[in-house]
Amino acid sequence: MTTFSLPSGRPLGVAVIGYAFMGKAHSNAWRTVASFFDVPAFEQKVLVGRDALAVAEAAAKYGWAESATDWRSVISRDDIDIVDICAPGWMHAEIAIAALEAGKHVLVEKPLANTLEEAELMAEAAASARERGVRSMIGFNYRRVPALALARELIAEGRLGTVRHIRAAYLQDWLSDVETPMSWRLRKETAGSGALGDIASHAIDQVQHLTGQTVTEVTGTLRTFVAERPGAAGLEKVTVDDAAWATLGLTGGVSASVEASRVATGQKNSLKIEIYGSWVR
Amino acid sequence: MTTFSLPSGRPLGVAVIGYAFMGKAHSNAWRTVASFFDVPAFEQKVLVGRDALAVAEAAAKYGWAESATDWRSVISRDDIDIVDICAPGWMHAEIAIAALEAGKHVLVEKPLANTLEEAELMAEAAASARERGVRSMIGFNYRRVPALALARELIAEGRLGTVRHIRAAYLQDWLSDVETPMSWRLRKETAGSGALGDIASHAIDQVQHLTGQTVTEVTGTLRTFVAERPGAAGLEKVTVDDAAWATLGLTGGVSASVEASRVATGQKNSLKIEIYGSWVR
Amino acid sequence: MTTFSLPSGRPLGVAVIGYAFMGKAHSNAWRTVASFFDVPAFEQKVLVGRDALAVAEAAAKYGWAESATDWRSVISRDDIDIVDICAPGWMHAEIAIAALEAGKHVLVEKPLANTLEEAELMAEAAASARERGVRSMIGFNYRRVPALALARELIAEGRLGTVRHIRAAYLQDWLSDVETPMSWRLRKETAGSGALGDIASHAIDQVQHLTGQTVTEVTGTLRTFVAERPGAAGLEKVTVDDAAWATLGLTGGVSASVEASRVATGQKNSLKIEIYGSWVR
Amino acid sequence: MTTFSLPSGRPLGVAVIGYAFMGKAHSNAWRTVASFFDVPAFEQKVLVGRDALAVAEAAAKYGWAESATDWRSVISRDDIDIVDICAPGWMHAEIAIAALEAGKHVLVEKPLANTLEEAELMAEAAASARERGVRSMIGFNYRRVPALALARELIAEGRLGTVRHIRAAYLQDWLSDVETPMSWRLRKETAGSGALGDIASHAIDQVQHLTGQTVTEVTGTLRTFVAERPGAAGLEKVTVDDAAWATLGLTGGVSASVEASRVATGQKNSLKIEIYGSWVR
Repeated sequence: MTTFSLPSGRPLGVAVIGYAFMGKAHSNAWRTVASFFDVPAFEQKVLVGRDALAVAEAAAKYGWAESATDWRSVISRDDIDIVDICAPGWMHAEIAIAALEAGKHVLVEKPLANTLEEAELMAEAAASARERGVRSMIGFNYRRVPALALARELIAEGRLGTVRHIRAAYLQDWLSDVETPMSWRLRKETAGSGALGDIASHAIDQVQHLTGQTVTEVTGTLRTFVAERPGAAGLEKVTVDDAAWATLGLTGGVSASVEASRVATGQKNSLKIEIYGSWVR
Repeated sequence: MTTFSLPSGRPLGVAVIGYAFMGKAHSNAWRTVASFFDVPAFEQKVLVGRDALAVAEAAAKYGWAESATDWRSVISRDDIDIVDICAPGWMHAEIAIAALEAGKHVLVEKPLANTLEEAELMAEAAASARERGVRSMIGFNYRRVPALALARELIAEGRLGTVRHIRAAYLQDWLSDVETPMSWRLRKETAGSGALGDIASHAIDQVQHLTGQTVTEVTGTLRTFVAERPGAAGLEKVTVDDAAWATLGLTGGVSASVEASRVATGQKNSLKIEIYGSWVR
Repeated sequence: MTTFSLPSGRPLGVAVIGYAFMGKAHSNAWRTVASFFDVPAFEQKVLVGRDALAVAEAAAKYGWAESATDWRSVISRDDIDIVDICAPGWMHAEIAIAALEAGKHVLVEKPLANTLEEAELMAEAAASARERGVRSMIGFNYRRVPALALARELIAEGRLGTVRHIRAAYLQDWLSDVETPMSWRLRKETAGSGALGDIASHAIDQVQHLTGQTVTEVTGTLRTFVAERPGAAGLEKVTVDDAAWATLGLTGGVSASVEASRVATGQKNSLKIEIYGSWVR
Repeated sequence: MTTFSLPSGRPLGVAVIGYAFMGKAHSNAWRTVASFFDVPAFEQKVLVGRDALAVAEAAAKYGWAESATDWRSVISRDDIDIVDICAPGWMHAEIAIAALEAGKHVLVEKPLANTLEEAELMAEAAASARERGVRSMIGFNYRRVPALALARELIAEGRLGTVRHIRAAYLQDWLSDVETPMSWRLRKETAGSGALGDIASHAIDQVQHLTGQTVTEVTGTLRTFVAERPGAAGLEKVTVDDAAWATLGLTGGVSASVEASRVATGQKNSLKIEIYGSWVR
């Protein structure tokens, strides 16, 4: 991991926006990272969420000094140096851009944004912030999985010869049951997409990260198998995909198939990547 | 297996056209099928190939009474009832149509034909022959693999709920090495296609056979990773695909991904099919 | 495969004793071996069994010229050169010794014998016959499985470093169901043992064959989980093991665990061998 | 998890003895358990180790309020309620018995003790402490792995029928390389045993825990493949096993094979358990 240059002698102040599934996972990471890795000094300053009571309880549980409900006031605090965005996708762009402009280092969960336009604005804000010494990154955590990091090294060393094609499949089944209820993850306006942004994003990132190549061609398909799910007000329309398929062409000539599904019954959280190189005598 | 009605009391006479890889495999099947299954009486009459000496030697080795070099004269023989076509793809249509018109039952290896036009003419000839009691089939041997036959039963019984999506991958690596030489299987004019017709055809057939549904939508990509291979006269151009990818939509709503490769280093002959159904409580 | 020296110009005459499961498998091998391998000329002369009608039908089905019920008269025939013994274990010693003494080359199915005493007598007969140019072997067919033959080569080349320990497990489940009926394979007087002789024998042979070492130490356990099974006359006592475990020490210092079971529910016919060598830098 | 009854209104005070591999792992567990599970209030009071500087650094890193070098003074403190013993095996008995007698709840890492005599004394101390409301347990963490907990439930519900035999193998390879240096884990006087106590203990515990049965019969073998390893003073003698094998008989009739190795090259940390039950129609 790269190290931040500390603005002063004091520990870096961290704020996490969001306290649900990912907010909890990131809180755990912040709580334990210094036990395992050599990182700059930092403090778990504030956990941010919309529900004051719930976020206060979560903050206490996950080791945060305070909780807050207004992310805008948090990113304007002088004692906050890092803003870690675990809010739903539709909020990413606004928070990230504001935080970058406020001079905060930013970590955003994937998928980066719900629309290409938002993503481009964020990338611009990040590039401009970088010139002022402000760091930013997307939460592609699989890059740090030892087996994948090793695979990347083996590829870079040419141990597989020339990589020809890759098969990447990310399969889950938590939406297999038609009774699994509606949530923000199943609405296009909040989540942007379904399996595509949620998990195919990891697979696509790996394809690029493993090979050091960039996707330049794509053909793909999306499917929603369960069109309606039980919500607060009866059945509601699911407006994102349950599964996604794509064939990718990369700059260096690699082809990759990517498949993601949240209705792959029996697969709890399976990310499998097969890499086929030229024959090495 | 269905039984033929015998034209007379005599055993059915069988001719196999082609004596190379598939001709050998089919010869073995003819030689042993009656030891394991209850089939009508038949005789291994004649093995047909272009090289008189080589086909004579093969015929002796594989248990055929005779060999011949002219398939036309063979299909006009009264003592031949079944014509089993293991010749390269470009010959399938001509031989099959002629055999059907001569009143012979016909088994054709897959892929059925090198072009859609040929396939349609063959289907017409088969339909017309069927009205005269003449049988025909394509060599989709994986239909008889016990595990796949069982999967088909389980699906038909609803044991997987509603099938939503299928992942089918047929992977081989015999073309991984750039030194693997040119052959008829690597030329479009003789083979029609590469991994697509050779092995993806099995995967696609299984998707349809397992579900009882028919493909109505397809998006796909072909790639040739090794553009030239050593031939009799130096490097020759490979004109078929090394790998193929497709996403299929079927009549009953199933989606399927199909991937086939003959450069999947390390995979000798791997056909894997994953079937994802709705949650069954 | 080694080649026999033919006694005269005529093809070798083969007799198989036994026409059930193994007799059928061997018949198939004799019927097709010459199509795939370069073997001396031979003829499928006679299939031997106790039930005249059944063996006659089997002989016709599996390609034998004749059938017979008396193995003694068969092994005294001048036109028989090879006697392939697929009868139940309790008959192996008598037939094999008689055949060897009659100057016939002998192939015996495993397990070689039902008792150590029988095995030793057979080994003596074989050694003595070998001096007269008569060949003999046990049917350890897994030695010819390409993956295992390759493993043996890799070990011999030192590619695994020094082999330290091996895990060999042969698992089947055809006896899992308590309703599976009694048979000769479940009686000590006919089969000698259960999973031990039937399938652990393959695993033990592989451990020795792969390493080129000989077992000198053994600790082991046998278990019979289903004590009685339905027979012709009601429930009958099972007198052989359903499963067997052993830890072996070999001449060159290798340790091996061997496990065999015919009640490993879900395992149809699974032979897995893991070989652990010293670290190779 | 069971809940402790708090002695007063104050949070429970926790001390961990040992700060190396297991001390670090347990520290992480204490640091994060309350974020994920509903546990009584507790405080990470003190981390104990022999090297004052190193344990102080570890305490700071892993979230402990203090560090100490004398475990005896720690277990006599009134503000310590729970003593978690991660020290090497030879120290387990002395610390655990002293802590239990001091009225502290005790968690001991496996293997419980280096000798049967020590284990019996500890069990007596624990039984006697239990009567005074003092809790104790061994660190068999695999019991909480969801897949194993589910397997236990399925077995208890009879979903596998009657369990007949189990195959349990715990394989690692960190000792495969002969250059891996000497450590306390490789000396009998400190570790008690090698793969047997270190990892076979988990496998054996699972066999009992999954079935609810107790081992009553055992046959086993130990092997040390690398007799000497580089130590501070040149090559030193390894006095524990590199691998262990056992066949177990349990009270309810289950048989189990257990295999453990720390020289299973290629296996990083693989615990596999196969459970074979009677056929369920």
